[in-house]
Amino acid sequence: MENEKTFTEIMDALVAECESVLKKYLPDPRNMPEGEQYASLVAEAMQYSAMAGGKRLRPLLIARICDMYGGRRELAEPFMAALEMIHNYSLVHDDLPAMDDDDYRRGRKTTHIVFGEGMAVLAGDALLNFAYETAVCAFSAARTTAETAAVIRSLKILAKNAGIYGMVGGQCADLEAENRQEEVTGDMLQYIHSHKTACLIDSGFEIGAILAGAPEEDIRRLEQIALYTGLAFQIQDDILDVIGDSAELGKPVGSDEEEGKTTYVTLYGLDRASRRVQELSSRALEEFDKLSVRDGFLRELILRLVSRRK
Amino acid sequence: MENEKTFTEIMDALVAECESVLKKYLPDPRNMPEGEQYASLVAEAMQYSAMAGGKRLRPLLIARICDMYGGRRELAEPFMAALEMIHNYSLVHDDLPAMDDDDYRRGRKTTHIVFGEGMAVLAGDALLNFAYETAVCAFSAARTTAETAAVIRSLKILAKNAGIYGMVGGQCADLEAENRQEEVTGDMLQYIHSHKTACLIDSGFEIGAILAGAPEEDIRRLEQIALYTGLAFQIQDDILDVIGDSAELGKPVGSDEEEGKTTYVTLYGLDRASRRVQELSSRALEEFDKLSVRDGFLRELILRLVSRRK
Repeated sequence: MENEKTFTEIMDALVAECESVLKKYLPDPRNMPEGEQYASLVAEAMQYSAMAGGKRLRPLLIARICDMYGGRRELAEPFMAALEMIHNYSLVHDDLPAMDDDDYRRGRKTTHIVFGEGMAVLAGDALLNFAYETAVCAFSAARTTAETAAVIRSLKILAKNAGIYGMVGGQCADLEAENRQEEVTGDMLQYIHSHKTACLIDSGFEIGAILAGAPEEDIRRLEQIALYTGLAFQIQDDILDVIGDSAELGKPVGSDEEEGKTTYVTLYGLDRASRRVQELSSRALEEFDKLSVRDGFLRELILRLVSRRK
Repeated sequence: MENEKTFTEIMDALVAECESVLKKYLPDPRNMPEGEQYASLVAEAMQYSAMAGGKRLRPLLIARICDMYGGRRELAEPFMAALEMIHNYSLVHDDLPAMDDDDYRRGRKTTHIVFGEGMAVLAGDALLNFAYETAVCAFSAARTTAETAAVIRSLKILAKNAGIYGMVGGQCADLEAENRQEEVTGDMLQYIHSHKTACLIDSGFEIGAILAGAPEEDIRRLEQIALYTGLAFQIQDDILDVIGDSAELGKPVGSDEEEGKTTYVTLYGLDRASRRVQELSSRALEEFDKLSVRDGFLRELILRLVSRRK
């Protein structure tokens, strides 16, 4: 990137686009379709959790990569909204008392604190299901058989990365890791990071490229970049929990150790964790530089994601 | 139907087919794909809840109606499994302490009692997501553009009927009805019944016909039949809670009144409820007899669903 301002400007514009796409697709509690007004409370809970800010990293990746390969945003938009809904449903359910039991997220009360536990379970379910209701809208935007095939392929990636062989699998292992007395191995931790964190990031990297008809070789590279970036992102998270600034992070520092949680840092120490982040981000950028197209913003974004301070 | 034996035989064969299709698609905790063994506990919880018996009504409808119109089961099977997964995820989440708080279902401990609440939340999420992972498999079975279009249309119906404008909307209104002090109106009750119960039954009636390329007029009639049958089914449920045999039902009689729950019976009385069931089932059969094809088994099934004693 030439300068800081350009990066921030592009970023802000992309985030605003993601929010407006999400808002366009989410049910509006104040303007429900005829005969559906009895579901307005769950629509309100969906809005509350999905429109609460956040980095919008995943839909932003779809949009930028789709642009990078000269794709049509009309095809990408339903997937941008769907992927962000999936991310947000997972946060709503993760915060439940039966899971992480968090009362606050991004400085606001969590969904179950505001709407009650039962409604939070339903709001998460509704967001997950609505992600698929939204993603299938992309079929209407497909103009050619190749575009229809790209939508089908994207739908498969979206679903796989969210489910038992993706994010939910990672959450399951994470829950088990918390409950088990025995040692959590490095192998299990790698599984948790690659599934719980990297899989949805992978949807962000792959779907925009597929919808834009990117070369297969690039799609394979983007898959690798997503894995390296996702793993580095998560290890950096563990590092920040130890060395971060709690005001910047918006959550207490040292909470992992206090909770007896096994992280990359508790398992391998701070030095090795930092070296691993360096190694993974180098690999990600190496693959990035081999893509058939260039994008300074995205390169910088990857760099910032893995070396962020909050 | 000519005789009782024939109906039961066809029914048993269909239920066995539904179970085998479901088993074929569900992740097998004892045989996970390579690298996915850390997710085996959530796979076990999915199996536990989905392979616990039940009527298999929804996938059975898809299969039978697909056959009725001479469709290919290969296209229908992913949807049979997906619809039953959606039904089962809703039961797992409905049983949670934050929702209905039930310890037993179909005579067995509920999922959260056996696997813990956190894992039950995840198992429900995993089943819902896996429904879509499974349904998209139907694209691989489509041989023509028309079949691909039928899969897309079925996917849209599957998703809509499960979500905020379908089952989840009904569950939301139901949860609100339980929490509110003020009177639950007949309009709200009709919304709950048509969404919480009739919507998934509608997927059962419509999807098999769409995949088999049934005439549009028949598809519209099947949608009506599903609504009448779903509503009658639910009112009959409320009637059985008052006059049923608790041993046959497998749950205590009178529990609705005890819990102060508003049902069709508490709102309109037993006589009017019975007349309404009669009226709805007459309408369903009237529409059924106007379909372009005949099926004695399905006609009998509709009749039994609305006049069942358990």
